[in-house]
Amino acid sequence: MMGAVDSVKHLRQIVADLHRELTRYGLVIWTAGNVSARVPGEDLMVIKPSGVSYDDLSPDTMVVTDLHGNLVEGELAPSSDTAAHAYVYRHMPEVGGVVHTHSPYATAWAARGEPIPCVLTMIADEFGGEIPVGPFALIGDDSIGRGIVDTLRDSRSPAVLMRSHGPFTVGRDARSAVKAAVMVEDVARTVHFAHQLGTPDAIDAAAVDRLYERYQNVYGQ
Amino acid sequence: MMGAVDSVKHLRQIVADLHRELTRYGLVIWTAGNVSARVPGEDLMVIKPSGVSYDDLSPDTMVVTDLHGNLVEGELAPSSDTAAHAYVYRHMPEVGGVVHTHSPYATAWAARGEPIPCVLTMIADEFGGEIPVGPFALIGDDSIGRGIVDTLRDSRSPAVLMRSHGPFTVGRDARSAVKAAVMVEDVARTVHFAHQLGTPDAIDAAAVDRLYERYQNVYGQ
Amino acid sequence: MMGAVDSVKHLRQIVADLHRELTRYGLVIWTAGNVSARVPGEDLMVIKPSGVSYDDLSPDTMVVTDLHGNLVEGELAPSSDTAAHAYVYRHMPEVGGVVHTHSPYATAWAARGEPIPCVLTMIADEFGGEIPVGPFALIGDDSIGRGIVDTLRDSRSPAVLMRSHGPFTVGRDARSAVKAAVMVEDVARTVHFAHQLGTPDAIDAAAVDRLYERYQNVYGQ
Amino acid sequence: MMGAVDSVKHLRQIVADLHRELTRYGLVIWTAGNVSARVPGEDLMVIKPSGVSYDDLSPDTMVVTDLHGNLVEGELAPSSDTAAHAYVYRHMPEVGGVVHTHSPYATAWAARGEPIPCVLTMIADEFGGEIPVGPFALIGDDSIGRGIVDTLRDSRSPAVLMRSHGPFTVGRDARSAVKAAVMVEDVARTVHFAHQLGTPDAIDAAAVDRLYERYQNVYGQ
Repeated sequence: MMGAVDSVKHLRQIVADLHRELTRYGLVIWTAGNVSARVPGEDLMVIKPSGVSYDDLSPDTMVVTDLHGNLVEGELAPSSDTAAHAYVYRHMPEVGGVVHTHSPYATAWAARGEPIPCVLTMIADEFGGEIPVGPFALIGDDSIGRGIVDTLRDSRSPAVLMRSHGPFTVGRDARSAVKAAVMVEDVARTVHFAHQLGTPDAIDAAAVDRLYERYQNVYGQ
Repeated sequence: MMGAVDSVKHLRQIVADLHRELTRYGLVIWTAGNVSARVPGEDLMVIKPSGVSYDDLSPDTMVVTDLHGNLVEGELAPSSDTAAHAYVYRHMPEVGGVVHTHSPYATAWAARGEPIPCVLTMIADEFGGEIPVGPFALIGDDSIGRGIVDTLRDSRSPAVLMRSHGPFTVGRDARSAVKAAVMVEDVARTVHFAHQLGTPDAIDAAAVDRLYERYQNVYGQ
Repeated sequence: MMGAVDSVKHLRQIVADLHRELTRYGLVIWTAGNVSARVPGEDLMVIKPSGVSYDDLSPDTMVVTDLHGNLVEGELAPSSDTAAHAYVYRHMPEVGGVVHTHSPYATAWAARGEPIPCVLTMIADEFGGEIPVGPFALIGDDSIGRGIVDTLRDSRSPAVLMRSHGPFTVGRDARSAVKAAVMVEDVARTVHFAHQLGTPDAIDAAAVDRLYERYQNVYGQ
Repeated sequence: MMGAVDSVKHLRQIVADLHRELTRYGLVIWTAGNVSARVPGEDLMVIKPSGVSYDDLSPDTMVVTDLHGNLVEGELAPSSDTAAHAYVYRHMPEVGGVVHTHSPYATAWAARGEPIPCVLTMIADEFGGEIPVGPFALIGDDSIGRGIVDTLRDSRSPAVLMRSHGPFTVGRDARSAVKAAVMVEDVARTVHFAHQLGTPDAIDAAAVDRLYERYQNVYGQ
């Protein structure tokens, strides 16, 4: 079993590397998106520093905070979204990773305050139903975190579209949360395209359940 | 003539490499798409393992199954779409390669259950007419495979848009099936754009036939 | 002054290299687009071989034909669009380069048979007015070439949108024709976006003339 | 403190490098966009040469002009937009960098002459309200520069959408102006998507003010 020090060192590498998936899939521009990971067994998280270019991210530039967003380790100020990540970790103990982006199609649904309907097998597989909208909330206190947690509690979805803002995703670890961020943009885009020229049928609830159960239990290695 | 062992080794390389065309053209995200190839003269196929990142694919990670999807060779579980690929190989002896993606524009047509009309010379060349829609089918038995085969039998198209799911394509070998996957997304996109601002005219049936005959027989080396 | 042999050798390199601009700007997929260059002072052209992947293009794989499309030099069959390129060179002596793509936004305008209106200073600069539509023409004889030439003769535009097919562009040399291919897709896309949410105003004819004159005479080194 | 010679040398490198951000984010094609930087304490600016490919830009190819656009240093003719950059530096002493692109979504709003409404927290953060439209102006005198300055004076936005033309952005230095060019295209795109399927709500003015104040003062290191 890894000690806390080893674990933090390992997570610095993982979290730094996972930001590359955000740029690879076009989910972020400039410095506008962030990944964090909970340190297992500790009241700590590893998160991106604020306003630092993705080209300049490395394990050493990552910062460690407690679960109230106070800086514990690192030279740089943590992401301006740290309070929202911390709130999620405090209130959702099963969550090990959080991601925030302003990926364009998901954010367009968020701008309209419209959930993404479950019209694709991929949405049933990964999100278990429609992808919900969270409230409009200003940065600066626990409003965003509370909006995320309150919305995700009523849903099987690991993604919430925060109104007029953008998507937040969660997962059992940081990689799963990044996967959900990639997936929510992909389905936001495809369903956007589908709606531009008509209205696709929703998949019926029983089929959604069967797809979700299978994917969560059978898919992968 | 290559023996079965050499042939499998060669196809592992080809199938692994062809997945790079899926990422190059933006047809897949994360692990959500797969290529397979029939082993000539054997009741075997080479296919992508389930849930493995495209960065981590290599000839060694490919898996070999029989044409009922049973694992014959390989350390990893085969793609969750293996049953659909296997059904196609069992029922379409002329097919040597199968590809499945959720490429966004093709999947948007699939979400609406709307065939892509033959309004471009490129569609006449490659697909010989409109690109058809297959039924909604749940994963887990032969439903998807049967939907693919039943739809393609009535068409010159190497691509079918499986309803609420995404495109499957076939070819005489894996490379041809990948080409069809690239082409179906390209024309799905262009025709989507054309429809957004009007209604393009269909090409008349006689011209479609002439274009298809010429392209299938004269194009290339 | 270069002799014909040196000139052909040089143009093989230039034409091979220019195909990379087509892939860089996403104007082509698989093998579906081609660049040619007239050999100055000779009744010859250098053109892409048919059905060869852009990754595999090199000066040596380029082919040389006369201006009726007959193979003069090279191991591979010339592009299936060779007759159209050749017709343009025979009938437009000022043209030194021809490019054909199926770039998606330009092809969407071509599918609707709708010219791209001159609503951007960049269109006035480069195209001197709206970008015209050419007739629907089948491959196999001089119909496509004649459609290109007849349309461009009435226009300052170096680009024509061949109906239900895609754009062809011309230039004083191959690089200029490639630039026009890049530009026509860019403005096709921007004007598509503009039209999706309203109707942009056309730039008045006097301003178009002033922009065109200045850009053609002052821009660049 | 750096002398003027060192400062110019340093800015040649910075300005050359920043053009890579324009290509990375797809804001420019061919040679159609440019970055400049004011030389601190001098009536000089460093700017891209006219019509030179982004691949061929280097510190040595950058040109230095005075703030009336007269060439002071460099072998190449300055950007055809030099007069507009120069006008901005003469009339907005707080501006240290200017960027011009024809990025497609921002230019689509410019083509319609429609400001981008403040419907996303990211717009409030970076632009402090809607992104304004400037007048239609022909190149060749101070019209474009005057249009930029007159529009930005009434706004907190560092970006203006010049009618039928494209975006110009400013910043305290060239990097900030490039960031604004990246951001304006990103939000132009997301709001375009949002408007395609409905009408997003504007963020109320008090919330816009709070977001803008916080972002300008707290974000980053």
